[in-house]
Amino acid sequence: MTLTDTRGTMSGLDFFRKMLTGELPPPPMLALLGIRLVEVEHGRVVFAARVEERFYNGTGVAHGGFAATLLDTALGCAINSTTPAGTRFTTLELKVNLTRALTVDVGDVRCEGQVLHVGHRTGVSEARIVDARGKLYAHATTTCIAIESSRSAEGSRGPEGSRGSAFPTG
Amino acid sequence: MTLTDTRGTMSGLDFFRKMLTGELPPPPMLALLGIRLVEVEHGRVVFAARVEERFYNGTGVAHGGFAATLLDTALGCAINSTTPAGTRFTTLELKVNLTRALTVDVGDVRCEGQVLHVGHRTGVSEARIVDARGKLYAHATTTCIAIESSRSAEGSRGPEGSRGSAFPTG
Amino acid sequence: MTLTDTRGTMSGLDFFRKMLTGELPPPPMLALLGIRLVEVEHGRVVFAARVEERFYNGTGVAHGGFAATLLDTALGCAINSTTPAGTRFTTLELKVNLTRALTVDVGDVRCEGQVLHVGHRTGVSEARIVDARGKLYAHATTTCIAIESSRSAEGSRGPEGSRGSAFPTG
Amino acid sequence: MTLTDTRGTMSGLDFFRKMLTGELPPPPMLALLGIRLVEVEHGRVVFAARVEERFYNGTGVAHGGFAATLLDTALGCAINSTTPAGTRFTTLELKVNLTRALTVDVGDVRCEGQVLHVGHRTGVSEARIVDARGKLYAHATTTCIAIESSRSAEGSRGPEGSRGSAFPTG
Repeated sequence: MTLTDTRGTMSGLDFFRKMLTGELPPPPMLALLGIRLVEVEHGRVVFAARVEERFYNGTGVAHGGFAATLLDTALGCAINSTTPAGTRFTTLELKVNLTRALTVDVGDVRCEGQVLHVGHRTGVSEARIVDARGKLYAHATTTCIAIESSRSAEGSRGPEGSRGSAFPTG
Repeated sequence: MTLTDTRGTMSGLDFFRKMLTGELPPPPMLALLGIRLVEVEHGRVVFAARVEERFYNGTGVAHGGFAATLLDTALGCAINSTTPAGTRFTTLELKVNLTRALTVDVGDVRCEGQVLHVGHRTGVSEARIVDARGKLYAHATTTCIAIESSRSAEGSRGPEGSRGSAFPTG
Repeated sequence: MTLTDTRGTMSGLDFFRKMLTGELPPPPMLALLGIRLVEVEHGRVVFAARVEERFYNGTGVAHGGFAATLLDTALGCAINSTTPAGTRFTTLELKVNLTRALTVDVGDVRCEGQVLHVGHRTGVSEARIVDARGKLYAHATTTCIAIESSRSAEGSRGPEGSRGSAFPTG
Repeated sequence: MTLTDTRGTMSGLDFFRKMLTGELPPPPMLALLGIRLVEVEHGRVVFAARVEERFYNGTGVAHGGFAATLLDTALGCAINSTTPAGTRFTTLELKVNLTRALTVDVGDVRCEGQVLHVGHRTGVSEARIVDARGKLYAHATTTCIAIESSRSAEGSRGPEGSRGSAFPTG
């Protein structure tokens, strides 16, 4: 059973709790970038990460994509922590504000995601990256849309599915 | 001489041309995610990448951070391809719209970044990820702010520098 | 029959064509700000407006809300110009980049909206404000979500409907 | 002395306090849309407004531009409430999430803006629109850039100034 299949059998909160205890492995991209889930409750999650030189762009600081990946993770999981088994949300859009450069000198950072709104069809959340002293490095908001987990094998894994015919209106 | 130091000695276009020919190495984050510069001209760049399972999130598709990293790369480089030696732009904000799921079935994608506006202090650009047939997977826009490359060693590597005193107004 | 009811009986393109010829009146907010539809085709619309001092903020330029209203109009109508009778899209999010100040000296501006993606559930478009010489003043992108027009009387006029009961956790 | 000139002679907080007491008039766009400043402190402002049918779009709800104008007002003023005389911030970009439809049934709404980051060159803030019961209708974030008020007469009223010559490539 894949991680995706497992997700379909339990609520978002149960899924993330199993990830927190290590009973479920982290998704590949999080493993690649060293992003670790450290707290989860209904509507709120915290991830930890560490700035490393392998995440740098060509100007001696972490690539904006590092912050974006960390923020997108927290934004989406905050919303998905509110869902019952069989429902999950996928990201429609993401907006990131970068307020300070992330360098290896910053070291460990936390990224907290918090739900702003969850309805039947859409969810909105915000997230921020802070260092050990609480200094803000980045802030982001997202819009997610609800999809049925059970249909994931049918090509409906994106906002519209990868097949045009996969989505009815609503 | 680091990649960052090298950047300070030449125009953005010269820098990216040397990266295109392999005379300069790709930045660490691009190497990590397999993102390759394939075209560059004044105000426009194209990067290529390939969706792999190691970029997946927990739902069987590429993490939104993969698209965000690819888009952020193209957005920033499009603006920086217009700069003289000694000047470069850093990202203030990034907004990404995801229109289709990126999976290994999609395979190779291209990401084209194009300048919308470059002034003395700020730059705005747009970028899109398309597959071999031109189908749109994601679109993004960014705002960048000009900083002086020569001051990068002084802690001014982010929007405000990592030291509060590093930036005069303007 | 209200403007909203009328919209439910015809395609988006037919609706906007009747607005273009004056057979249908402009929506109240457009009348208030002097925003006029001047071109419409499948997936693309153009609106015209004129910067006036009554749109100014406290710093001697047009309020950002003037550009935002003009852009939001073009973004949404570009997507809705592609819809059949009985379906329309409502805005989930809007991101605006302001590149130059809009003042009365600028005078007449055009705002062109263009579809980037329209699926069964969501639409993404971009729009830009330019002056008579084509100079860019603002750029924006949006995500819209499909709703059934016929349900508008039932309180589903927003992303989730305007009734409290539609929202379990919001 | 214009409102803009007055702003140059005092801190942002003093300016908004005079607007709060009615000693200074509201900017034209706020008067037009009935947006009223009701609270201000360092880094935080609250505006009040009322949904009216003259703000409607063609689908029986307030135009997204109404929320965008209200949010942009709160976002910018929150940042400007932190500035000394002679300095102010202008908006580079604005992102709005709409979570519920605004109709005349909603009536009075409040929009609170709060600073997330203010540096020497840039400011980031967030704002939200809520009804009397605290229900969220919209959320937004912005990036602003510092400009010198004294230069406002010289054409520097936008991100780069409003004169063509200020832009090498734009």
